[in-house]
Parts: sequence; C-alpha cells; structure tokens
Amino acid sequence: MLTTSVGKLRLERPGMVASGIMDETGPSMVRMLRSGAGAVVTKSIGMEPNKGHPNPTFSEVKGGYINAMGLPNPGIELFGKEMEIAAKAGNIIGSIYGSSPEQFSILAGKMEDYGAAAVELNLSCPHATGYGMELGTDPKVIKTIVSAVKSSVSIPVWTKLTPNTHMIKDLALAVQGANGDAIVAINTVKAMIISPQLGKPILSNKFGGLSGPAIRSIGVRAVFDIKMVVDIPIVGVGGISDWKDAAQYLMAGACAFQIGSAIGMKGIEIFDTINTELERFMKDFGYNSIADMVGVAHE
Amino acid sequence: MLTTSVGKLRLERPGMVASGIMDETGPSMVRMLRSGAGAVVTKSIGMEPNKGHPNPTFSEVKGGYINAMGLPNPGIELFGKEMEIAAKAGNIIGSIYGSSPEQFSILAGKMEDYGAAAVELNLSCPHATGYGMELGTDPKVIKTIVSAVKSSVSIPVWTKLTPNTHMIKDLALAVQGANGDAIVAINTVKAMIISPQLGKPILSNKFGGLSGPAIRSIGVRAVFDIKMVVDIPIVGVGGISDWKDAAQYLMAGACAFQIGSAIGMKGIEIFDTINTELERFMKDFGYNSIADMVGVAHE
Repeated sequence: MLTTSVGKLRLERPGMVASGIMDETGPSMVRMLRSGAGAVVTKSIGMEPNKGHPNPTFSEVKGGYINAMGLPNPGIELFGKEMEIAAKAGNIIGSIYGSSPEQFSILAGKMEDYGAAAVELNLSCPHATGYGMELGTDPKVIKTIVSAVKSSVSIPVWTKLTPNTHMIKDLALAVQGANGDAIVAINTVKAMIISPQLGKPILSNKFGGLSGPAIRSIGVRAVFDIKMVVDIPIVGVGGISDWKDAAQYLMAGACAFQIGSAIGMKGIEIFDTINTELERFMKDFGYNSIADMVGVAHE
Repeated sequence: MLTTSVGKLRLERPGMVASGIMDETGPSMVRMLRSGAGAVVTKSIGMEPNKGHPNPTFSEVKGGYINAMGLPNPGIELFGKEMEIAAKAGNIIGSIYGSSPEQFSILAGKMEDYGAAAVELNLSCPHATGYGMELGTDPKVIKTIVSAVKSSVSIPVWTKLTPNTHMIKDLALAVQGANGDAIVAINTVKAMIISPQLGKPILSNKFGGLSGPAIRSIGVRAVFDIKMVVDIPIVGVGGISDWKDAAQYLMAGACAFQIGSAIGMKGIEIFDTINTELERFMKDFGYNSIADMVGVAHE
C-alpha cells in the first residue's frame, strides 16, 4: 500500500532520509534503510575532501534548526567505501555538489559506479559560496548542469531546488526542459540568528539555512506551485515531522518525501510511525495507493 | 533611552504595530499607541473598498500563522474618519497598496492629508493578484513607484519588501536609488497548508503568507543583507515576540521594529514588556541608546 515510484525508481516506502542527516557513513545509511525509510540520500559530496565551516555551525530556533555546515564531506574518492556498504542494503541517492557542469558530471558518474539508485544535484545549498543556490537561482545554469549530467549517467538525475527565490516555477521548468528525472523541493531557507549578548551572528558563517517545522508550509507551497507547471515527479522535503505533514506534501503533488530535522527531534522511529499512521489514514479515507493521493489538492 | 529615529521621524519607542493587526479603526489604533507602541502602521488601504478573500482566510501552523486576507479595507475615502481619530493620538504610518504609480501617489497624498507621519508602500503582499509582491520583485517597478510617490508627498516614504526572492538586495538598492526614506523588511513568506482529511488547501486563496516566530530568522537575515548594501534606515519586522527577537533585528541593522502576530499571541502588553526588558538589557550591556545597538552584528 505504501509503495511509490519516483519516475523509474520504485520505493517500498514513500519516506526517504534527506541529505545531511545520518548519511555520512555506510553503517549509518544501512541503519536508516532498516528503520523504515524507502531510500537514503547521502550527505552532499564534492570533488575533494572539505572540512566545512568552523564551529558553531548549528543552532536551534523556534520551530526548527539553523545550520551552516559548509558542505563538510570526505570527497568523492573516499566516499566510495561508504557507498560500497550502503548500496548493498537498499536505495541510496547520491547527493552531489560542484561548481561546474563538468564537476557535477564526474561526481554523478562516480555515484553511478558506486551503485547509487539515482543522483540528487544540490543546486540549492544556501550557504556555500560558488555552489548550491548561487548556481541554482538561474534557470540557464540549471539547464546546463542537468543536461550535462543527464548525458553522462544512466541512473535517474534529480535536482534539489531552493525556496529562496520568486522564480521556483522557472527553475522547475528548466529542470524539466533538460530532461531531468525529478525535482526535489525544498532546500533550507536562508536565515540568521544573532546573540544579543554577544552582539553578533551565532554561526561562524553568519547566515545559514532554516529547517524543521517552521518551513513546512513554505515547502508545501513550493511543491504545489511546481506541480502546476511540470509533469516530472516531485519529491517533497521541508519540515515533515508527522504523517499529516507527509500527506500535505503528497497532496500538493509530491510522489515521495524526505525527512531531515525531525529525525534529530524524534529519532529514527519516525519512519515506522509515519508509515503506520499514513497507512491507517489511507484506509480510513479510501486511498488505495500513494499514487492516489498525489496532487489531489489541485482538484 | 528607548527613543529612536527612522530618518526624520522620531519615535519615543522603537516598536510599532505592524500593518494588519489592530489597525482598522481609529479607536483601536489609539489603544495600540497607548500600549507602548511608538507608532502604528495602518491596515493596507487601497483606492476602493475591498471585501478581501472569502473565508477561511487564516490558519495556525507550527511556529506561526498563515493568512490570505486579500487586502480587505474600507478604501481610502472612508478611511479618513479613522485617521482623523488616530493621527491626533500619535504617529500613524499609512500603509497603502495600488496597481500603478499613479494609484500609489494618490493614496499617499490622501494619507498625508489625513495626518499620517509617513506612508508605507506595500510592495510585498504575497497573495493579491496584480498587487504587492507581483510588483515588488522587479527593481525597476519599485524604483518607478517610489519615485512617483516621493514627488507627490512631503512626508517620509517607506517601502515594505518581500522575502520571497533571491534579489532582496537589488530591491533595497532600488528603493534607495529612488530616494526612498526607509525600507521595511520583511512581509510574510509565501506558504500553504493542506488538510489531509479534506484533500485540499485550507485557505480559500489556496496559498497565503506565513508570519510569526517561524519567520524571525528569515527576517533577521534579510535585514542583515539589506544593511550591507544601503545607507537608508531599515525597519525590521517578522516574528518578533520578545526583547531578544527585537534586539536581533536592531543588531542586524534595523533602527526600529514592528510587531504583528505576537500581539495576537501575547496581547497588547507585549510592547510594555519588550520596552522594559530591552531597557534592562541595554543598561546591563552598556548601550546608551537604540542607535548604539543598530547594526552592531556587522562589526
């Protein structure tokens, strides 16, 4: 009853682990797959090892978290050994970031070699100069990068978009125009927390990305908007912490969803809990499959 | 100790009532002025009476509210009698919306005649077709409207910007380039709430604007970003519910702040409470005036 498909990729469960949470090592990804997640998206991986921003990189705010990790990761070469462990256990989506179409293509090829079920292009990280959102608010740049990756790999190519723009429909159309296989929406929202006592921003990077329940209604709106203009699959992400939140994303037009902050807030049991409660809701309200729920809020 | 200035406009207290809360009638505005607010921004007023969107127009979400009122208001002619009562009691900022530079100029002229201390151009409402954010994400349109209003009135002209864009610095520069007197940031964030049981969006307008604590770190970031590029005063607004939130906006670069949703959450005592606690913080940390705190997070 909970099976779904993101284009050609079939998932036993509609919920995935979002990039950046419990997805740095092979064993932690295996654990998440066994917790009831239908797939795990890896931490964003780049060409070279990257230490990320100095501490502090994380703070709690009302309704969520704000972080500016700065894309710390071991680099694509070293990440191979984590993928070797994880990809045997289930669907691993390789999240990658780069500063050019060539870098994205190389990274995607490596992820394919490592056994990734799909790649997710991080074109939306709000706090990494020269990467992420700095590339991902220009439809032409998006089209160029997605096209380049599409011609280098045969696994599905997903693109994660930023909500920090009034042009998200144009960005989504650019992904579709480049034959992208799916859109993932949303990444975090640009935000800042200042300590009155210190008189300065708390994060070393000054600003960061807001995640958690605070951004859920922003993400649902983004998915709804995107669904109005494209035909390719959408994966919803942003502030999901219970089955009702997940149902909102599905009804807005997503065929699957990702969970990040709530894993930290509620533990890895969240996938089992949402699966059970979502299934109960579906039975009570006459939905026979996830596909039956997708986009009903548009009718 | 709490006095501040927004350009030429001097305020006894740094906190104002944001547009849309307790500011539809003369008597309610007088009551808010007496509650410890330094000024009251009126509900956004247009050329003609407007009933707004049908119900439901309002819903609570985690960390805030989402609304799509649709700019209900009695129209500029009828609003004169409310202004006559309110403007005698203190600083009233006339919020106005229109669909052309001519409309904004006419509305601003009327507000000046009514005794408004300043006008606030609503170029950022996220849920009114042909108004607000639809005009307010284009720097050229902003410049044209601000210039037109500036040449029609002699009271200060403030412009309220939307956070739903990656171009907020460009919008702020457009305001400054048109000799705008101040920037107000931010308006609400585009958002949507869907009822799983109904299978459709809860608000009649489908999407609406998110306000409350959920958007505070988004607003603080916007003010910080704007402060980096302009020299004109900034008024901070978005999710302020205690003195620490207010201090964050001041330190990010705002010389005054507005409160909306928290009046609904905590009552009108919020102004007195914040004034008292902000003053205590200033004494404890050696700030002699509000001006001393403005923008310190940039140092």
